[in-house]
Amino acid sequence: MTPAPPPYTTVTFTSQHSETENADEYEQTAQQMVEMVQQQPEFSGVEGARGADGFGVTVSYWETQQHAHAWKMATEHIAAPRRGAQDWYADYTVRVATVERQCGNHRRPDDLD
Amino acid sequence: MTPAPPPYTTVTFTSQHSETENADEYEQTAQQMVEMVQQQPEFSGVEGARGADGFGVTVSYWETQQHAHAWKMATEHIAAPRRGAQDWYADYTVRVATVERQCGNHRRPDDLD
Repeated sequence: MTPAPPPYTTVTFTSQHSETENADEYEQTAQQMVEMVQQQPEFSGVEGARGADGFGVTVSYWETQQHAHAWKMATEHIAAPRRGAQDWYADYTVRVATVERQCGNHRRPDDLD
Repeated sequence: MTPAPPPYTTVTFTSQHSETENADEYEQTAQQMVEMVQQQPEFSGVEGARGADGFGVTVSYWETQQHAHAWKMATEHIAAPRRGAQDWYADYTVRVATVERQCGNHRRPDDLD
């Protein structure tokens, strides 16, 4: 799922759905974006969740910020002409970050201590 | 919600619930952690989502990695003696990252271009 070991890049998209009547259209475009991102050679993984309250977090993983930037530019060509972000989301934020440390129950658990 | 402007630190916890019968106990401890983290003076915000499939993403925001580390150590005192992570999650990962850029519909949208 993620390039290992750190450092690597994440693009985190947090959003609150502003309305429910466009849910089908949103899901279609979201699925199209996921399919497209998976075709990017630099793509490492994407995962996310959306709760019943409409708030969602999607994280994509990249080897470098340059790769993540290329993906951002590509997705804009899909999403921007179709719908403005304000149509779907009451609020959204995109954050580009560098992961410096990680741990989990499928890795050595002490690298954060 | 987040310290502005970047750089700042995120701690992202992704997890897959391994079973549903402990959901109440999980939610109690998760709520206890949220209440505790909100009392940390260095705390800036926390948000997250969990979908119907049991996969969830929680992101907390901190001014520095040192602050995030203090929180991690504190939460372990709540969670670790009570339940092993393997009891709740089939899989989880904690990532500490530095946010370097952000944009959104409530900020200048061009700082990622």
